[in-house]
Amino acid sequence: MLTTHPFDDDKLREECGVFGIAGIDDAAAMVALGLHALQHRGQEAAGITCRNGKEFYSHRALGPVAGNFDSEEIINRLRGDSACGHVRYSTTGAGTLRNVQPLEADLASGGFAIAHNGNISNALALRDELVRHGSIFQSTSDTEVIIHLVATSKYRTLLDKFIDALKQVEGAYSLICMTAEGMIACRDPLGIRPLVMGRIGEAYVFASETVALDLVGAEYVRSVEPGELIVVTNGELRSHRPFPNNQARPCIFEHVYFSRPDSIVDGSSVYSVRKGIGAQLAIESPVDADYVIPVPDSGTPAALGFSEQSGIPFELGIIRSHYVGRTFIQPGDGVRHLGVKLKHNANRPLVNGKKIVLVDDSIVRGTTSLKIVQMMREAGAAEVHMRIASPPTMHSCFYGVNTPKREKLLAARKSIEEMREFIQADSLAFVSIDGLYRAAGEDTRHDLQPQYCDACFTGAYPTVLTDRDGEEETDQLTMLNERSDSSGTARDHEPSGDLPRLKQSAN
Amino acid sequence: MLTTHPFDDDKLREECGVFGIAGIDDAAAMVALGLHALQHRGQEAAGITCRNGKEFYSHRALGPVAGNFDSEEIINRLRGDSACGHVRYSTTGAGTLRNVQPLEADLASGGFAIAHNGNISNALALRDELVRHGSIFQSTSDTEVIIHLVATSKYRTLLDKFIDALKQVEGAYSLICMTAEGMIACRDPLGIRPLVMGRIGEAYVFASETVALDLVGAEYVRSVEPGELIVVTNGELRSHRPFPNNQARPCIFEHVYFSRPDSIVDGSSVYSVRKGIGAQLAIESPVDADYVIPVPDSGTPAALGFSEQSGIPFELGIIRSHYVGRTFIQPGDGVRHLGVKLKHNANRPLVNGKKIVLVDDSIVRGTTSLKIVQMMREAGAAEVHMRIASPPTMHSCFYGVNTPKREKLLAARKSIEEMREFIQADSLAFVSIDGLYRAAGEDTRHDLQPQYCDACFTGAYPTVLTDRDGEEETDQLTMLNERSDSSGTARDHEPSGDLPRLKQSAN
Amino acid sequence: MLTTHPFDDDKLREECGVFGIAGIDDAAAMVALGLHALQHRGQEAAGITCRNGKEFYSHRALGPVAGNFDSEEIINRLRGDSACGHVRYSTTGAGTLRNVQPLEADLASGGFAIAHNGNISNALALRDELVRHGSIFQSTSDTEVIIHLVATSKYRTLLDKFIDALKQVEGAYSLICMTAEGMIACRDPLGIRPLVMGRIGEAYVFASETVALDLVGAEYVRSVEPGELIVVTNGELRSHRPFPNNQARPCIFEHVYFSRPDSIVDGSSVYSVRKGIGAQLAIESPVDADYVIPVPDSGTPAALGFSEQSGIPFELGIIRSHYVGRTFIQPGDGVRHLGVKLKHNANRPLVNGKKIVLVDDSIVRGTTSLKIVQMMREAGAAEVHMRIASPPTMHSCFYGVNTPKREKLLAARKSIEEMREFIQADSLAFVSIDGLYRAAGEDTRHDLQPQYCDACFTGAYPTVLTDRDGEEETDQLTMLNERSDSSGTARDHEPSGDLPRLKQSAN
Amino acid sequence: MLTTHPFDDDKLREECGVFGIAGIDDAAAMVALGLHALQHRGQEAAGITCRNGKEFYSHRALGPVAGNFDSEEIINRLRGDSACGHVRYSTTGAGTLRNVQPLEADLASGGFAIAHNGNISNALALRDELVRHGSIFQSTSDTEVIIHLVATSKYRTLLDKFIDALKQVEGAYSLICMTAEGMIACRDPLGIRPLVMGRIGEAYVFASETVALDLVGAEYVRSVEPGELIVVTNGELRSHRPFPNNQARPCIFEHVYFSRPDSIVDGSSVYSVRKGIGAQLAIESPVDADYVIPVPDSGTPAALGFSEQSGIPFELGIIRSHYVGRTFIQPGDGVRHLGVKLKHNANRPLVNGKKIVLVDDSIVRGTTSLKIVQMMREAGAAEVHMRIASPPTMHSCFYGVNTPKREKLLAARKSIEEMREFIQADSLAFVSIDGLYRAAGEDTRHDLQPQYCDACFTGAYPTVLTDRDGEEETDQLTMLNERSDSSGTARDHEPSGDLPRLKQSAN
Repeated sequence: MLTTHPFDDDKLREECGVFGIAGIDDAAAMVALGLHALQHRGQEAAGITCRNGKEFYSHRALGPVAGNFDSEEIINRLRGDSACGHVRYSTTGAGTLRNVQPLEADLASGGFAIAHNGNISNALALRDELVRHGSIFQSTSDTEVIIHLVATSKYRTLLDKFIDALKQVEGAYSLICMTAEGMIACRDPLGIRPLVMGRIGEAYVFASETVALDLVGAEYVRSVEPGELIVVTNGELRSHRPFPNNQARPCIFEHVYFSRPDSIVDGSSVYSVRKGIGAQLAIESPVDADYVIPVPDSGTPAALGFSEQSGIPFELGIIRSHYVGRTFIQPGDGVRHLGVKLKHNANRPLVNGKKIVLVDDSIVRGTTSLKIVQMMREAGAAEVHMRIASPPTMHSCFYGVNTPKREKLLAARKSIEEMREFIQADSLAFVSIDGLYRAAGEDTRHDLQPQYCDACFTGAYPTVLTDRDGEEETDQLTMLNERSDSSGTARDHEPSGDLPRLKQSAN
Repeated sequence: MLTTHPFDDDKLREECGVFGIAGIDDAAAMVALGLHALQHRGQEAAGITCRNGKEFYSHRALGPVAGNFDSEEIINRLRGDSACGHVRYSTTGAGTLRNVQPLEADLASGGFAIAHNGNISNALALRDELVRHGSIFQSTSDTEVIIHLVATSKYRTLLDKFIDALKQVEGAYSLICMTAEGMIACRDPLGIRPLVMGRIGEAYVFASETVALDLVGAEYVRSVEPGELIVVTNGELRSHRPFPNNQARPCIFEHVYFSRPDSIVDGSSVYSVRKGIGAQLAIESPVDADYVIPVPDSGTPAALGFSEQSGIPFELGIIRSHYVGRTFIQPGDGVRHLGVKLKHNANRPLVNGKKIVLVDDSIVRGTTSLKIVQMMREAGAAEVHMRIASPPTMHSCFYGVNTPKREKLLAARKSIEEMREFIQADSLAFVSIDGLYRAAGEDTRHDLQPQYCDACFTGAYPTVLTDRDGEEETDQLTMLNERSDSSGTARDHEPSGDLPRLKQSAN
Repeated sequence: MLTTHPFDDDKLREECGVFGIAGIDDAAAMVALGLHALQHRGQEAAGITCRNGKEFYSHRALGPVAGNFDSEEIINRLRGDSACGHVRYSTTGAGTLRNVQPLEADLASGGFAIAHNGNISNALALRDELVRHGSIFQSTSDTEVIIHLVATSKYRTLLDKFIDALKQVEGAYSLICMTAEGMIACRDPLGIRPLVMGRIGEAYVFASETVALDLVGAEYVRSVEPGELIVVTNGELRSHRPFPNNQARPCIFEHVYFSRPDSIVDGSSVYSVRKGIGAQLAIESPVDADYVIPVPDSGTPAALGFSEQSGIPFELGIIRSHYVGRTFIQPGDGVRHLGVKLKHNANRPLVNGKKIVLVDDSIVRGTTSLKIVQMMREAGAAEVHMRIASPPTMHSCFYGVNTPKREKLLAARKSIEEMREFIQADSLAFVSIDGLYRAAGEDTRHDLQPQYCDACFTGAYPTVLTDRDGEEETDQLTMLNERSDSSGTARDHEPSGDLPRLKQSAN
Repeated sequence: MLTTHPFDDDKLREECGVFGIAGIDDAAAMVALGLHALQHRGQEAAGITCRNGKEFYSHRALGPVAGNFDSEEIINRLRGDSACGHVRYSTTGAGTLRNVQPLEADLASGGFAIAHNGNISNALALRDELVRHGSIFQSTSDTEVIIHLVATSKYRTLLDKFIDALKQVEGAYSLICMTAEGMIACRDPLGIRPLVMGRIGEAYVFASETVALDLVGAEYVRSVEPGELIVVTNGELRSHRPFPNNQARPCIFEHVYFSRPDSIVDGSSVYSVRKGIGAQLAIESPVDADYVIPVPDSGTPAALGFSEQSGIPFELGIIRSHYVGRTFIQPGDGVRHLGVKLKHNANRPLVNGKKIVLVDDSIVRGTTSLKIVQMMREAGAAEVHMRIASPPTMHSCFYGVNTPKREKLLAARKSIEEMREFIQADSLAFVSIDGLYRAAGEDTRHDLQPQYCDACFTGAYPTVLTDRDGEEETDQLTMLNERSDSSGTARDHEPSGDLPRLKQSAN
């Protein structure tokens, strides 16, 4: 089955987006809009929970926000002045509605709902312990351990119970919680996943990305900071910092692909960073060609940067179908080979006889890249050069991003030359890890204490991974040693970025 | 209700696309793909009819091709080596499945199916006459008159009956018919709507646009010519020309907006024509600005042409949501004002403080243009100049394009200066009609015998409009006199392009 | 697959019920109720057409009336002061909505809708002729020929066109038509299928059975007479008799099984007739037993009659599930043998050790009878005697009743003794044909000119069967000769009841 | 809204039925059949949980078993050799799927599923306590407290934990549980709700009624006894009796209405008991009439008993629609008054001019009785006498039966004469409480220690009702004093049956 799914099978996928608003009429309608703006972060399922007085009301659905949350009937059932919501990639199969967030529970203190972007890396261990003491889980979601830790905490206030719970979990989490009394937004100590705060009138808004603020008409205030816990009660906001200080390690892949180009992530314009990566690529790996052609849509900003830096004209050599929101399941065996064409079509009259540079954001399995190169050749391209606006993706993510198993990652199995051969390009180059950091506004990567989580490129995981102990140990050790320079130039081995992680695990 | 519908409410809409293939196994699966590639020509409904031996099988559905025609179950019910299909914009309301094409009938000669792109302008008159003699109509579709004319024709062979029928209809039609013996593809004498022919192995393929050939892997052979009728029987192809010779008048709006940029329409690359229009605009109406920004996606090729010609950098100042394929119905009154934001978002960090030129393909009601200009100003743009890659749209189309009533067309009510004021731009310019013809490869418009149907810009309708007689008479007389130069410069009155039309109506 | 379907697979099935009302607000709501009361005559599909001024509105659905026609939304779309409706057994497969009645057409005289109970036995011949002259059929329904005959009739008024059409059709029809001006109800010259008239206030009501009058609160006036055509216009009623006089031949199976026991059919209480058949059975075929046990629900009145006549106590030895309205498709192979138990369960404590007489209305294939006898034996019955309240069913019906092919009819293949052996009963008897006529109030069957259509028992078809000519000829000749006495006593051969039929065909 | 719902709005409703089977292939298919046979005990929702090795699989659905559990697809997903299931009346509103049983949890000991017929009368108190200690509830079902009590029990083995849990709950429960190791069936100490055991081959079957054994082909073994806990592990069965001895108090309303007439409940044929009640009625309250007419279907056995005892002929004067399984929501205001007619129709020709005795099982609100009496009068009945096969229903049930609030119970507000007047009958009589006990095989009711729970007639609740403390106190005190003789004869006040209840609460 080949699809025109906007989550291309050959991309990494952000697993979630979260949105919350406190202190406004029709809060749920605002959340529906906010989730629609975050739809690119997960379209398999969505949910909204709102609070009206002490009562919580929820609606969850498999599928996208549009069509599920835009009817008067649904929104009218979700009355209240506070609401939070969640979009989710991933879960498949029957009965998965139980895993759709926000998760919700009736605690002794009243209702409690939680929407989570990220991944708890010791969820299994915590779950076993909780079940042994009589907790009954409703879902298979890692997020549910947080609720049970809160429910069974011996502390007295809900805030203390919540902090008690967070101190027991490892991994990545940007959370928006709704309690009987207010809303809590927080970000894990390393700030791996993004979370921003905005205002609209008297109301506070929290969202994974600023585009969601734009759509609801909220003003962007600032990012929630790594390790920060913000409580909104009766229109008042308090910031807590319950964790020891830590160097932040936000995910750099948000800049490469996950976030929308019109978002501001941790202070930087994603569009500018992407253009900068394209320019870096043109500097690091120039090529003689007639046209720079983006692989739409995610490769477009980097292609513009490459074109500007190199002076090679930018042209639309690949036309993307307008109907990418719909999955087309190809019927019949006879047409199985068509593949990527359902989504992209070559602009034949333009490409024919020309030397072209294709610019894409990343290579995961490489199957799409191969098909696009072939499509260009079939359309008559004389030379096809591929430039990738990220270093080779060599490691799985355990922080809320769906990555194929390592052995499926093309870069984990092949050298750059072998990859070039696989995708049948005339040349292939990736931006260097330092080039990437430079485009993100850093002078260079500080290898001892990297400014970002770049584990997918370097294997330098910033936290312990309890649930994967044993199973992944050899693999991780390997990772520590294999940090390779993605620009293709060999580099000396140096102290890896995961040392701080060992320290963090001692907290 | 505001939507992210890809058929923007403020665009003209092509009403149909057609696709047929004769002489291949799994014909229906190919048609499903072909229709998917033509989905931009109509997504309200789709249908496929196939022939297996003497039996016809059909499936029709409201909604897009994906989701309705891509299941094994549906395709397996549509066995056969010939099939034709149709995508359709427009029909709303219950029971409309009866209007979804291909229309199909059991004639004395056996099955007969017809898929039609265009509009029969004397359908009501013909229908009344047929009903008086006992014909019973199944649908309200203008296309059905063709079937009844065939069924009641006194000629002996089906081909003669079919030609007899066509000689009685006026207007625009690109038809693909399936008979008990073969397939017929034809185009009205003026060739108003497009139709191309391709080959894949031994099979012949017909489609509204070449992108559908690309997707199924067929080779482009040529356009079906205006007034040509091609019959495929048992793998053999014969071309007939039953009509007196006529100067062709293909629709020029196919180049402006309807066709996909990667299609070749009547021999020209749509992408190149659109870049050419952009370049003409830059020559005719230059402006001093920091960035050229396309209104995505339809304005992009013209914006690239404008940027190249003017040297002003091309930037993505408006980001289009990835989820435009889904309609989002805004819930709640509180969020009704959000409008176009559901579809487009300003790239604030880029636009802020800059002078920008927006390039769009056309202005219909003007409401979207207004919102986009406002969005740019809210994002901090210092100046907003609008350039439109077509002349002002001042007249309704009666040839298979859904246009608002004349009084809703901004250009029918306002001068260019008034339009600029309405959309709140700092300046506004349209390409001239001659500039448009030049971009399409002509030296100029031959006003006595125009090379294209450009009635939506000029009011020069190339056929009589029987069903509208009386009702539209005054209006049409007005049209004849008001042919204005869209570039804003007054021109002398000259003989209009609709003289030949009077002659044609005598045929 | 075994089911608890109320239309037991082993019963003959009435194919349709019709209902119409003229001259009342909310006519469609009344029709929905009326159809609900007639649901036993067909539950595969239903439709309602109403007229509001000159406009006709229709809704059709597969499935029963309840759930499809009882929402405010549907009924509100069907505004108007006249409406007719139809319930239908039979059609299977996709797209059959086209066959769901009322059929509707826009004639030159305006809208025309028709609901038909019965079967046109020369429909294929008429259809071929109509298609040859250019008529295009929308459905595969025999009823549609009537509409095309009306549409193409050369007569001037609609009434004349309609009578012209009826004179060309053969077979059984009780029709309710709605025209631009009023309502027409009529019954074929032999009155094969029932049709009654009622009044409610100023409105006239027509229905297949009186139970539908009861439910809507209408007063029963009289039967529409065989060959009568009643026109209601502006609240006035006129009766026409366009056909030569004919001896009526109403279907006797309406009394045996089709009609509800609380209906009055052609002047007789169905319940009384059924009790009378049971009494006849007790007289003709007495048995020594402890209990008379009905096969629920259709055998109950005859069982009461048998009990009264014989003095043997009536007991509920078989309990019918309350949930017969739901089809239960048995999952898994392991449970396939359960069969009839899904619908009926033996009342074990009652039956155990007892000699019982089972009374059922008819035997079609005999499979259900076999299972019920077995169920009684498994529950411990000492003896099981079967008494059937109709003669053996030996011939197919071509007048709107769904009968299995002749070779599937148990009585067409086996003697009564062989049938007894097949169903494993200790004894088996059917009521005689004369006994049946006596229960229906006649002294005896007038074999030269029978008072009823009893072709399913005797093979004496009262009309020609044009569409079956050739194919069925031998079979029919056989039928003429094989008219056997169903009581088990041989009788001499006598002139058959189908002589009048030849005369009628000359009309 | 008036309906033909088989759960007549004017009947008490059993809230649940349970079925379990251990030790057979395709266990879930058997459970589906068993639940179908128990559908009359609840048709709002159904669920099945099966165990395959250590894995549990569940499917739950709103609506009846047929249509939800009879597809190969569903049953194939429920592989395993043990399964239990539940049908449920009641839950309404969105999201109620969470309340559909079997409830299921992953305990430290593995999977645990529970299906419950009855009602826990201290569920709220237990729930509050559990939540205070960190338990998170998934449903609002009283049954869920049992699971949490098991999960948090300090005992070591699952069986001990389970008994520990049961000792904390009050009320009525017939339970079928599935554990990682086997199946547990048990009945509360008073045996209020029924539960029977059967065998099929090597497998053990448990069900609410014997009809479910009949349908799956299982042999009836015996009732599970009050206070008995049966454990099936690896094909071996052990019976435990963890509770102190108690006099059983099974629900007598099972004989009056809930159970199917073909079931054997606690050793008696329901059909025989009902006929016996009818005979008692004829003795206690004779009447001079032409016909005995049952209110179908539940009044039929008692009507037969009345007819036999009195010698008055039994006739079907009311015909029940075959389509009672379908709810018909009456459209339009104009037809709102039709009411009960959708379900029942008078057999006019029979009833007209006759004196009739109607026999029904019970009167709850009285609205249906009124409509039926009116229907008989409209059909021409000369006299209408009503006889009821139970004493007046005066008290709510708190043991798993849905009763209207007391003030809605006609008998709680009116004397028998007032009730007669309300339903407009010529006479009205109820069977006496002692007559009811006699029909059930007792000599008389032992008022100090009644043999049945008859609280709905007498107010003598056999257990404490913790959750209703306070709220119902006055009401209950009243109940104790008002125990009235339902036969209409005043009786002296005597010690009530609820003394043992006080003792039991001390256990």
